[in-house]
Amino acid sequence: MSKNSLYQYGTIGSLMAGAMDGTDTINDFLKHGDFGIGTMDGVDGELVVLDGQAFKMSAKGYVVHLEGEEKLPYGAIAHFHANHTFTIQDELDNEAVEALILDKMRSKNLFAGVKISGTFKKMHTRAMPKQEPPYIRFSEVEQPNFYADEIKGSIVGFYSPALFHGTSVAGFHIHFISDDQKFGGHVLDYVVEDVTVEIQDYANLIQDFPKEAEFLDTEFDYSNIAEEISLSE
Amino acid sequence: MSKNSLYQYGTIGSLMAGAMDGTDTINDFLKHGDFGIGTMDGVDGELVVLDGQAFKMSAKGYVVHLEGEEKLPYGAIAHFHANHTFTIQDELDNEAVEALILDKMRSKNLFAGVKISGTFKKMHTRAMPKQEPPYIRFSEVEQPNFYADEIKGSIVGFYSPALFHGTSVAGFHIHFISDDQKFGGHVLDYVVEDVTVEIQDYANLIQDFPKEAEFLDTEFDYSNIAEEISLSE
Repeated sequence: MSKNSLYQYGTIGSLMAGAMDGTDTINDFLKHGDFGIGTMDGVDGELVVLDGQAFKMSAKGYVVHLEGEEKLPYGAIAHFHANHTFTIQDELDNEAVEALILDKMRSKNLFAGVKISGTFKKMHTRAMPKQEPPYIRFSEVEQPNFYADEIKGSIVGFYSPALFHGTSVAGFHIHFISDDQKFGGHVLDYVVEDVTVEIQDYANLIQDFPKEAEFLDTEFDYSNIAEEISLSE
Repeated sequence: MSKNSLYQYGTIGSLMAGAMDGTDTINDFLKHGDFGIGTMDGVDGELVVLDGQAFKMSAKGYVVHLEGEEKLPYGAIAHFHANHTFTIQDELDNEAVEALILDKMRSKNLFAGVKISGTFKKMHTRAMPKQEPPYIRFSEVEQPNFYADEIKGSIVGFYSPALFHGTSVAGFHIHFISDDQKFGGHVLDYVVEDVTVEIQDYANLIQDFPKEAEFLDTEFDYSNIAEEISLSE
């Protein structure tokens, strides 16, 4: 497919239901783009891919630059180029920023990439602690929270149409990495101060799957998956 | 992507919610495979693509061979080659046949293609009558039913993993075309007599979308979509 596709490896639903073993290497994942998010083997931390470089924010509170051989169970990635760009020089919270993005995006019925870079007045994240098999459900894991003030960095992530809640997270699913590569995580809320917002409208989605028996042969329990995703993400 | 991808244009959810305008030509759709199903502009009938030829079973009860310029709002298609093949020389109903297929498929967590060709003791189908804008919801359309006995032909369709209910139909979504190209439709139930079953395990899904404003700018109501799909498909 084209350079205007979003590539997703695994699904949020399967991850939530216990498909947490890392199966795809970062090197293979990076073949599909230079801009993305995900988590690592055993849901170990929060993956950010920015400008082709992969970083993991650990639940221990520090960021690791990934080498390439590490494996992930879930991630979404694309070749980033913006279709819409605007700046915000004002203190706006995440709800206000998301409303502006929804207004600029071509359509709520397409996937979109979202990059917000600059200075954030407040940033609140969390990061998943590494789990060991047999895995419990994602929604039962306690996750440490992290806070930063007056921090420079980039939000990286994706908007998914409502109909894709289950395989993706409906709405915005965004991670953060600071410019000094010391702080990051799954973004819970934030306040911008002086940022540039870039949006990419994707033409289509390539949905890929693990090929390992551990994934293929498991009967996943998806009975409450929509709620579990909404609560956990 | 590879020849082992399933390509889906539009989603069942959007179709159900009223995205019924034909937007992709049969010629463009056929670039993605030789084996598929779908519906035509205004949900006019039941599309079958078999061996690269496209047919529509109309709600009026006859089959049309499509020329290529006709447009569809929804379809799924692939380059068919079987990973698993077996024969049934016994009177088995659709539930029994589906159980055999689920047993042979590589995984319930991957998409699969299903072709069942030969002699059917009973075949029960329905076909959507063409709608005109403004469209009502798919689930509110009354559809004529069709019955045939001792008929030779092919079932063409796909298995979708449970997590994809909403964008696809979870489980089996199958259409039928008779060998004499006179009878077909969306399959409701059947009894096989002497058939060959072929199954293809897909590595991944390419999910494409209409690019027309009518699709991009509509706020679809998906509040009851899972139930609507289950009732209608």
